[in-house]
Amino acid sequence: MIHHPVSRVLAAELPQHVGEAVEIDGWLHRFRELKSVSFMIIRDRSGLSQVVITGGYEAPPEESVLRIRGVVTANGQAPGGVEITDPTIEVLSRAEQLPPFDLYRPQVPGNLPTVLDHAQVTLRHPRLRAQQTLAAASIGGFRSTLDDHGFTEIHTPKVVESATESGANVFELDWFGRRAFLAQSPQFYKQIMVGVFERVYETGPVFRAEPHDTARHLAQYTSLDAEFGFIRDHQDVMIMVREVIAGMIQSVRTRATMELQLLDVELPKVPEEIPQLHFADAMRRLGKDDVDLAPADERALSAWAVEEYGSEFLFVTGYPMAKRPFYTQPEPGNPSYSNSFDLLFRGLELITGGQRLHRHGDYLAALAERGEPIQPYASYLDTFAYGMPPHGGFALGLERWVARLAGVDNVRLTTLFPRDLHRLSP
Amino acid sequence: MIHHPVSRVLAAELPQHVGEAVEIDGWLHRFRELKSVSFMIIRDRSGLSQVVITGGYEAPPEESVLRIRGVVTANGQAPGGVEITDPTIEVLSRAEQLPPFDLYRPQVPGNLPTVLDHAQVTLRHPRLRAQQTLAAASIGGFRSTLDDHGFTEIHTPKVVESATESGANVFELDWFGRRAFLAQSPQFYKQIMVGVFERVYETGPVFRAEPHDTARHLAQYTSLDAEFGFIRDHQDVMIMVREVIAGMIQSVRTRATMELQLLDVELPKVPEEIPQLHFADAMRRLGKDDVDLAPADERALSAWAVEEYGSEFLFVTGYPMAKRPFYTQPEPGNPSYSNSFDLLFRGLELITGGQRLHRHGDYLAALAERGEPIQPYASYLDTFAYGMPPHGGFALGLERWVARLAGVDNVRLTTLFPRDLHRLSP
Repeated sequence: MIHHPVSRVLAAELPQHVGEAVEIDGWLHRFRELKSVSFMIIRDRSGLSQVVITGGYEAPPEESVLRIRGVVTANGQAPGGVEITDPTIEVLSRAEQLPPFDLYRPQVPGNLPTVLDHAQVTLRHPRLRAQQTLAAASIGGFRSTLDDHGFTEIHTPKVVESATESGANVFELDWFGRRAFLAQSPQFYKQIMVGVFERVYETGPVFRAEPHDTARHLAQYTSLDAEFGFIRDHQDVMIMVREVIAGMIQSVRTRATMELQLLDVELPKVPEEIPQLHFADAMRRLGKDDVDLAPADERALSAWAVEEYGSEFLFVTGYPMAKRPFYTQPEPGNPSYSNSFDLLFRGLELITGGQRLHRHGDYLAALAERGEPIQPYASYLDTFAYGMPPHGGFALGLERWVARLAGVDNVRLTTLFPRDLHRLSP
Repeated sequence: MIHHPVSRVLAAELPQHVGEAVEIDGWLHRFRELKSVSFMIIRDRSGLSQVVITGGYEAPPEESVLRIRGVVTANGQAPGGVEITDPTIEVLSRAEQLPPFDLYRPQVPGNLPTVLDHAQVTLRHPRLRAQQTLAAASIGGFRSTLDDHGFTEIHTPKVVESATESGANVFELDWFGRRAFLAQSPQFYKQIMVGVFERVYETGPVFRAEPHDTARHLAQYTSLDAEFGFIRDHQDVMIMVREVIAGMIQSVRTRATMELQLLDVELPKVPEEIPQLHFADAMRRLGKDDVDLAPADERALSAWAVEEYGSEFLFVTGYPMAKRPFYTQPEPGNPSYSNSFDLLFRGLELITGGQRLHRHGDYLAALAERGEPIQPYASYLDTFAYGMPPHGGFALGLERWVARLAGVDNVRLTTLFPRDLHRLSP
């Protein structure tokens, strides 16, 4: 007689239990009926397991939730080298309808609206799910790297009084009868917090009322922001960026090993020193004379960095002040350029960062030069009158990072429940 | 001749450098001039250090940012047992004005508006800063405990189509010309994600249009949410809550040691099993007959748990269904009560949680019974038609936790930049 254990074993742990009676719980991922035998694939948080049923069985619809007791039996043909035999099956929760496509097929169908409209169930597809595991591992690596470097996590307001920073593209809000706006970034707050903690980071939602319906823009995305003081210039920020990217990749490598395999993702190598190219040199190389890089330029420079340095990462430094926000530190001796950078990764801008102004007078001058009023920035500007060190920072969009890493064309597919011009649900 | 090192030493590291020439960078926390000698206290991210100046010195205003080179000299009277002597002082950034109160005084003044209106500088006060360090350590402990238990971090929409869950108290938004609302909690999304990952958590902002001006409500706060499947009932959720609270406290103990001392905080002991009291028994004990606990009731029950069990934590279980949301699992055999709980800590409700319904039909019945329409919940409800396991979860407000821990009366003081009925800046 077999004594069943009270507690559950996960799919990934089954190989350690060969010969034992176990309980597995999970979703009916797939049911296949052959002549004299049927197979169930059960999905749980750790992976898939195979259950063999001899004789007939009237299976519930796929995605039903099952509790199965049986014996772990070695079988070289089965996933993980084991399968459950002699099962007793209990239906914990019977599915009433089938997903819009078979979740067990290797690929997600190309019909984007179907995938997104039914995200409440399509996210259960192992590939879509795996991308979210990459995201979780990445953000974990971001935080732990910065923790190790003496940064402190902060939480700043997502509703603000003035539509400042980037001017347009803000969502307007009714705040107890007053006009307010959703924050486009924690930029001002993270700079203020350098005065408190020297080194801070925030991981949280930001909002852009992007009227464009592109594959790389979202109206809400997860911004990974860092800012720190006592830097020499933007080169110190770039050194930290390199550490953070390496830490994120290391975290993905160790925390999402199975998912990397499933998605067939090759993790990029991070050079000890990421190559860099000044914006002026980039223009010469591209044979252009402009103040910004077009998407095609980013792709060309990225390809050049792979060829020249074997690096999938490239810093473009010194962007023209004309295209950078007012708080950017101009390049010493060359003030039409700036102490700022973008990090290109696999043909796309991934990170933007730089050194900021830190003297109160420099802020007043910068706003005056741009013909901007001071009042909307009052408490932010005030910070610099109290003494602030030279500082800088950077920001990275989590969804865009995962899209590049996993080779996904549309950033909506790396977001659980995307928000855009048209989409407010699920 | 002394050779100065190129790189900076932090205040906390100085005791390891006695006799060496070093550089320290930081804010001028305090300047004190005596007859023949002056003292500067320099504040950096690691703490305070003392600099001794013999002869006259015209110090810049407090909060100016300084770079000081000098020799580390042992002195039992100085903070940390060392001080910097023979200093060379460089002013990196001169403060142009003084904070609204002296940041070096041990206590923060009682005038709340002054403190909050000038948060961009008052947060530099070591006590206010220390509370934020407790918050950062707490959230770190929340995540690492759940990571260790196989949870996956998620990021859900903060803008939603329908003002559902709690009905009133939502902020309305203009979303590309459509009406939308700020999310009051990630409740529906975290339940959906149980179908994908089994175990999920989210740490992020939530929004409540609280028209009340109380010391314990904020219009934006940081919600720590967890949800997981394959539970027996709410007791499994309470076991996880106990683990998470213990993990948060352990993280605070190790990552905010200095801050605990500064704030004179005694960390609570977490019993192996946190005592619990059913709501019906709580009513009997209070000599009342009601469907909810008043603040005074929470204080009374908390005091009773300290007396009876020596525990600063108490679970009150089985709250009446009348006061719980529609997705709550009723108590088997006693359906006017529920499989839910609150965790009281030091006289206040800290955590709310419970088991949720998991069958599609139960949701339809629950909404029908409350006379609520189904349409606004469509994609959420749909999830349960695809097969969902028994599940439950809980939520904890970070600012309220820190307020209880540090013994702060007003939750605004544990928030960097609070948002409430009146406050939209800084």
